[in-house]
Amino acid sequence: MFESAELGHKIGKAVYKREVPALREALLDAQIDLLQSKRFPVVILIAGVDCAGKGETVNLLNEWMDPRHILTHALRDLTDEELERPPMWRYWRDLPPQGKIGIFLGTWYSSPLLEHVYGRIKNAELDQRLDRILRFEKMLCDEGALILKFWLHLSSDQQKKRLKSLEKDPDTRWRVTDTDWKHFKLYDRFHRVSERMLRATSTAQAPWLIVEGSDPRYRYLTIGKAVLQSLRQRLDAPEAPAAPEPFPPVTTAIDGVRILQTLDLSRKLKKAPYDADLAKWQGKLNLLSRDPAFRKISVVAVFEGSDAAGKGGAIRRVTQALDARSYRVTPVASPSEEEREQPYLWRFWRHLPRRGRFAIFDRSWYGRVLVERVEGFCSHADWIRAYGEINDFEEQLVRHDTVVVKFWLAISKEEQLKRFQEREKIGFKRFKITDEDWRNRDKWDDYELAVCDMIDRTSTEIAPWTLVEANDKNYARVKILKTLCGQIETALGKDKR
Amino acid sequence: MFESAELGHKIGKAVYKREVPALREALLDAQIDLLQSKRFPVVILIAGVDCAGKGETVNLLNEWMDPRHILTHALRDLTDEELERPPMWRYWRDLPPQGKIGIFLGTWYSSPLLEHVYGRIKNAELDQRLDRILRFEKMLCDEGALILKFWLHLSSDQQKKRLKSLEKDPDTRWRVTDTDWKHFKLYDRFHRVSERMLRATSTAQAPWLIVEGSDPRYRYLTIGKAVLQSLRQRLDAPEAPAAPEPFPPVTTAIDGVRILQTLDLSRKLKKAPYDADLAKWQGKLNLLSRDPAFRKISVVAVFEGSDAAGKGGAIRRVTQALDARSYRVTPVASPSEEEREQPYLWRFWRHLPRRGRFAIFDRSWYGRVLVERVEGFCSHADWIRAYGEINDFEEQLVRHDTVVVKFWLAISKEEQLKRFQEREKIGFKRFKITDEDWRNRDKWDDYELAVCDMIDRTSTEIAPWTLVEANDKNYARVKILKTLCGQIETALGKDKR
Repeated sequence: MFESAELGHKIGKAVYKREVPALREALLDAQIDLLQSKRFPVVILIAGVDCAGKGETVNLLNEWMDPRHILTHALRDLTDEELERPPMWRYWRDLPPQGKIGIFLGTWYSSPLLEHVYGRIKNAELDQRLDRILRFEKMLCDEGALILKFWLHLSSDQQKKRLKSLEKDPDTRWRVTDTDWKHFKLYDRFHRVSERMLRATSTAQAPWLIVEGSDPRYRYLTIGKAVLQSLRQRLDAPEAPAAPEPFPPVTTAIDGVRILQTLDLSRKLKKAPYDADLAKWQGKLNLLSRDPAFRKISVVAVFEGSDAAGKGGAIRRVTQALDARSYRVTPVASPSEEEREQPYLWRFWRHLPRRGRFAIFDRSWYGRVLVERVEGFCSHADWIRAYGEINDFEEQLVRHDTVVVKFWLAISKEEQLKRFQEREKIGFKRFKITDEDWRNRDKWDDYELAVCDMIDRTSTEIAPWTLVEANDKNYARVKILKTLCGQIETALGKDKR
Repeated sequence: MFESAELGHKIGKAVYKREVPALREALLDAQIDLLQSKRFPVVILIAGVDCAGKGETVNLLNEWMDPRHILTHALRDLTDEELERPPMWRYWRDLPPQGKIGIFLGTWYSSPLLEHVYGRIKNAELDQRLDRILRFEKMLCDEGALILKFWLHLSSDQQKKRLKSLEKDPDTRWRVTDTDWKHFKLYDRFHRVSERMLRATSTAQAPWLIVEGSDPRYRYLTIGKAVLQSLRQRLDAPEAPAAPEPFPPVTTAIDGVRILQTLDLSRKLKKAPYDADLAKWQGKLNLLSRDPAFRKISVVAVFEGSDAAGKGGAIRRVTQALDARSYRVTPVASPSEEEREQPYLWRFWRHLPRRGRFAIFDRSWYGRVLVERVEGFCSHADWIRAYGEINDFEEQLVRHDTVVVKFWLAISKEEQLKRFQEREKIGFKRFKITDEDWRNRDKWDDYELAVCDMIDRTSTEIAPWTLVEANDKNYARVKILKTLCGQIETALGKDKR
């Protein structure tokens, strides 16, 4: 794999001087086209062997292009705010919006590589982590990003020579650390694991380009030209026509029996037992949230349901039990301008809670496979792939000790009509029924189909959906509190299993 | 000052039960009006004596209103990301946008109060800090925020009783800490300093409301009613008519001699000395940025100038000298949707650098007193007050060991015409001259006046403007690099003074 990058590639000074001015101009030109069209974001990864010139290459790209529209992500120690979120959070924070270029010097490949070389993770876990990276990059590509991945390579001899020459020069001595020498001694191991990693993660959408790092001119020109070519190619291509729905239609049971129909919506809870149960479970939730062990986990609670299903009221019964310092409720409506320039999950990543806290979502990322699907706000291909992307997202949360609790509040079509009419009768503006509510109601069956698909495809063992019979608000609220307590107890190891 | 809050106010259970439902409904109603009109943000501070029920009050406000549209800011230990920015950064991060309510349980009053009580700061510094708070709150009010400040008071006896009763109950024992008892022993000191602080910071726009904290029902009802009344009053008031320009016009020297005219724009630097100087100062800047002491400071560099003054090229000469990991360039254009819902300085606060880094602004907060003033994008009153707000902002940066360097790139009207024409001739799209550029040019004199006022009013000892003769790009770039190096050296204590 690295053979061609050990041939001693070189570019002479004269050639370099002749080629660079035109390259820079073309790069700048492409960058401005990108900025003005705002058609997609560009994600450039600069990875590779220690001291192969990664930092210098990033500097050069910033010099050749307009640094005002480049976001460089440096590899630094994690801040405490980052440590309390899943590992990918730090990269999501720094994703470039459409029209901009993000250069990642510290990449999501560093940690799996190092941990495997150091023997902290075994083959199976390495594969798992690479697989997660593949899914992440695929999502970025599907969301329109152009990903360019460069691997700077040095042969063992070249690396040794490079370390020694850096050390000899008093101006560059500081750049060679003990870790560099330690890594050099592990060269063969690094070589082997890198090769495996690169092989596993070179995809058609985001292939690796391996570049010999020893000659700076060769390295700069190779990378500069590759960036230009990819950018230009993508910019000059006509907007891709909407894909001709290449996916099989979502199949539903041909006998028409759907999961939502199996719910017994007649379930009720009378006032007296409701008052008692509410107090009991709110008390329980309050105790759990103050448990010392709770400081090590966090909770993400998702509330979905038809209009007038009682999401707001249910959320209030949850927050009543909590200290206001420990939660934040995020109502999800249409995305803001900044959010529209990012992958659709970006606006949820930014609201992930720190440890010891609750993030409560009133509607959520499931909008993608509900309203966006039914109303045609995104393409067929977009919402089909969303199921997998959402599962990946939630898996990352759960792996990072976040309890993911998801509620679908189910009411019957008749109950909804009753509630709409009541609200219109009260005429109280806070219950204003809009035309949109009535329009959504007309699509009841489409929504029901979408909900059933959603449940089938995203109710996972680690983040199951809880279907809540919500025709009776008392019953629904108690079931929600009870479920929430149960899942937190399990996470804290306090259930009696 | 606290006399009326030691009278043993009480509200009976019956009265409370009778009044609360209507109050809640009215609060919810006002909250929805606020949300829908998006006219202003609401900032509620809950401060006061330890154990006077601050947390419970915040919980109750969240319960009475819709928690989905409330952002609660808890007082927690500073994260490392917060520690590396000026103290107010953490509050700016959590400011509510228009239409939402932000409740601050940890407020900007905590730290000056505690530090003075503990004897860490003297009277003079306390006054300074309170003065800064006053200016911050005035800015928020001027930007349209409704600020409600509540101080929960307990007499010494009440506090003692409260601490003891909390301690007796096993369910609330955890809430009483050693610090609480330590503070109780300092009751008189706290009392004295609090009184002084409250007196100094009760303004017409944002007065304190002191509430006796011992009876929960009294406390809740008082605060609930006060929130409702203020909200309702503001919501029901007609939109304030544009102020009749109550400020004196900005005076300019009646002889027409302006600071910009004193510049010798004929200054030039030939190619050979330019190349030598550029290399010299870029090298110097590079060394400074790698100095171990640099990790303790940060740099904010502002580039302003007329169209075609050469800001982009100058910025590139600076970034060339730096490691791409250590800087970020923020080009400032019109604000995004999220930014428009916040005070105008918010979008700059969010880009403040961590320690050891550069934040470079291509145009900046000075847009307020330049383009917004000249084009009438904000009112006369808005840009007049901006001078002071900007000085406050920069003072906070400098106090937090940030080097603030500000460049005005000055070119003559003739030089601008020449550059416009050249750009049109090249016809290269990246130098596209828009109609707007020509329109701005027509307002040359207005802009020049605005620039001169800006320099007079915001060139301070701690953050001076550097006027750069920029008809000759070589001269300008070297002067900029040299100035930047000089100011960093001074900050690092490396200048030879």
